[in-house]
Amino acid sequence: MIEISPHTVAQLLYLVHSDPEELQEALGELRAPDIAEALKELPPDAAAKVMASLPFDLAVHVFDEPELTRHRCAIIQRIDPRRVGPLIEAMSSDQQADLFREVPHEERSRLLATVSESTRSTLRKLLKYPPETAGGIMTTEFASVPSDWTVGRALMLISEVGGRKETVYAIYIVDPATQELVHVVSLRELLTAHRDDNVLDVGRRRPPLTVTADIDREEAARLISKYNLLAIPVIDDQRRMLGIVTVDDVIDALVEESTEDVQRFGGMEALDAPYMEIGFIEMIRKRAGWLCALFLSEMLTATAMQRFQGEIERAAVLAMFIPLVMSSGGNSGSQATSLVIRALALKELSLRDWWRIALRELPTGLLLGGILGVIGFVRIVLWQNIHIFNYGPHYMLLAITVGFALVGIVAFGSLAGSMLPFLLKRIGFDPASASAPFVATLVDVTGLVIYFSVAFLILHGTLL
Amino acid sequence: MIEISPHTVAQLLYLVHSDPEELQEALGELRAPDIAEALKELPPDAAAKVMASLPFDLAVHVFDEPELTRHRCAIIQRIDPRRVGPLIEAMSSDQQADLFREVPHEERSRLLATVSESTRSTLRKLLKYPPETAGGIMTTEFASVPSDWTVGRALMLISEVGGRKETVYAIYIVDPATQELVHVVSLRELLTAHRDDNVLDVGRRRPPLTVTADIDREEAARLISKYNLLAIPVIDDQRRMLGIVTVDDVIDALVEESTEDVQRFGGMEALDAPYMEIGFIEMIRKRAGWLCALFLSEMLTATAMQRFQGEIERAAVLAMFIPLVMSSGGNSGSQATSLVIRALALKELSLRDWWRIALRELPTGLLLGGILGVIGFVRIVLWQNIHIFNYGPHYMLLAITVGFALVGIVAFGSLAGSMLPFLLKRIGFDPASASAPFVATLVDVTGLVIYFSVAFLILHGTLL
Repeated sequence: MIEISPHTVAQLLYLVHSDPEELQEALGELRAPDIAEALKELPPDAAAKVMASLPFDLAVHVFDEPELTRHRCAIIQRIDPRRVGPLIEAMSSDQQADLFREVPHEERSRLLATVSESTRSTLRKLLKYPPETAGGIMTTEFASVPSDWTVGRALMLISEVGGRKETVYAIYIVDPATQELVHVVSLRELLTAHRDDNVLDVGRRRPPLTVTADIDREEAARLISKYNLLAIPVIDDQRRMLGIVTVDDVIDALVEESTEDVQRFGGMEALDAPYMEIGFIEMIRKRAGWLCALFLSEMLTATAMQRFQGEIERAAVLAMFIPLVMSSGGNSGSQATSLVIRALALKELSLRDWWRIALRELPTGLLLGGILGVIGFVRIVLWQNIHIFNYGPHYMLLAITVGFALVGIVAFGSLAGSMLPFLLKRIGFDPASASAPFVATLVDVTGLVIYFSVAFLILHGTLL
Repeated sequence: MIEISPHTVAQLLYLVHSDPEELQEALGELRAPDIAEALKELPPDAAAKVMASLPFDLAVHVFDEPELTRHRCAIIQRIDPRRVGPLIEAMSSDQQADLFREVPHEERSRLLATVSESTRSTLRKLLKYPPETAGGIMTTEFASVPSDWTVGRALMLISEVGGRKETVYAIYIVDPATQELVHVVSLRELLTAHRDDNVLDVGRRRPPLTVTADIDREEAARLISKYNLLAIPVIDDQRRMLGIVTVDDVIDALVEESTEDVQRFGGMEALDAPYMEIGFIEMIRKRAGWLCALFLSEMLTATAMQRFQGEIERAAVLAMFIPLVMSSGGNSGSQATSLVIRALALKELSLRDWWRIALRELPTGLLLGGILGVIGFVRIVLWQNIHIFNYGPHYMLLAITVGFALVGIVAFGSLAGSMLPFLLKRIGFDPASASAPFVATLVDVTGLVIYFSVAFLILHGTLL
């Protein structure tokens, strides 16, 4: 298996500046995605030279790689202008749209002028859809045949145009009068059917699975994954075909979404670009917002502590366990949040299930808190008795305080952590905004109040 | 678009117990994945009755749904034993293997006796591979033809067997003597080629992309996604075909992996099952382990606080800012960890890039810490001057302490958070074990030491 290595990149870079023939030979060994990966690492000038030395068909495939997205624009400005038009023209329409999304506004019209009128009008349509919708990732290349054709005629068409369509494995049967989508057959079904049969008689007839252009690309991904499709048709309000979303776009979308989910769960805005490609200022911008918001909320802990200043001064020993007790609430909350975020994303849970989760998380949190409470209790009693630290004459009451506070805080953490995504969803936010730091911050303030309340109840009259 | 609803489930449940004919009619409207989804919600007895009323072909498709994984075993025990053999026999081999993985050991041999000898021997081979490897998710149904065949003969074979193979869109060309895999052509290429050509002359000749059975399924997913494949062949050490991993298995694997990643990042063991299907004890087991480990590590904060007991008693005001200052380090660390975990998973970074990341995270952390430090400083000075709280005569020094401590702690948090996944990977663990709570715990102890060290430097001779 050939995969691109820093060595390959260096070698290409060398060949770009020395021997064009050897360069072509070296490139011949590689697949389009490998070349795209190497181009990303090259300076734009060298990348443009590599592109120029590629056979046209391979160049198109390389340029069609979503991997190149953030680099295409710089490369295209350095390619012979006469070659740019045919290259763009031959790309698949979803990648054309992606390219034009990156092009600076002032250059858009210049580039648009290099392509044919039909491509221009397709592009205008595609660019209307936001990139995170089904319309934003669909391609307009698909195989469709009128519903009065035979299997043999359909197969003939596919063997003629097959090479140019992005996918021919699903064939869309449309009503010749209304252009409405009426049936979908797979190439496999077509191949195993009688050549003289009508295409409508192939496979099982039922309303085709479709999506509209404005639905979230994640929903298209979910349907393709659930029904094991290779593509899902995108239709307008009259059930006419606009395009298809293919399984490879869906995989790219899934990988992107899961990167976004992890980053947001880590408590920041999604980066939307590889770590090493993002600028310093952009990085600060993506991280500072949430960090400041969390910091401002966490300031409530200082306010809470001010309320308990008297207690801390009388019993400084109480302060020692604040980080331990508080962080446990955040940790159990973070667990519960991660569970609920994923269950909501996978549609295992819906908004109305919130009370079922609450009824599960409360006993779970109480038991988990109980386990930690016992460990905390034992630790204080043990440290006192083997003389590692002297917590004073009331160490037993202190141990009981820490133990019970942990039960309360961990239970509250689990409950709050599991309810936060529901709450966010209910008020119209993405439940995945409920990050681990967000939950920890939420639980910290309450945790302090619980801790000092338990302390007051148990230590009143002795330490406090 | 028909999707399964609680209503459908209730309706099926009613029909199971009343009218078998109407049940069949209701089921006729649904697709296999929808029926599988409904079966999951039904009690096993009712699910078995629904299965019994399905036409055989549809029953096979329903049973082939990965969605049913955790339920198949209970259903199969309630189906007419004479029907079980043919049903299992007709499933795709990867799902057969999944079924046998769930069956209790004592029942395995009874079920194995119901299938043919060839299925048994395939199963024995497949069950050797762990489920998270390429071998564990591959299927043995694929279309292969000898390299001396013509295009026409290959197409004929496919139109005959097409209906039974899980995927016929890639055709694997093997050397008739050695059974070695020599070429892969797509059905599209085959359809557009001349019928009399040799299959080896179709498409571009180059060493096929392959994987071995023991590689991680994530790696198979990455290759399928990178090269836009519909399937990738799994070969043995003599380059003979063992099976193929298909794109739909890969999507399922990706979704599962990203659930695992989020849950582990939330600070727990991956659940490996939907939230509502997991038992209470199992849930506690998955969460208590990490929670206790984090709690024990966090106990170091109590130890650190004991060292600073004198400082706290002299200046209780210092204790007030402990939660605020500490949590900021955890938050920035959690951001950095989420970034590096994903970049490592996507292979944007490798182990040897650690110093590049360190060189980026240090200035990022310093600047982010600086921003929070200024906010913290302003807050203390403001509260003092508008008389919300009296921090004492040395409030300015306190504000400076908090400000500088934040710079140090946030910078340390970013650095530690970004290096932790590298460290875990270096010592052989999965970098994705570096959860947000893990990083927070790591940073908390150091944060305390930084805070009190800064306090000692600035407040020495005044408050301390």
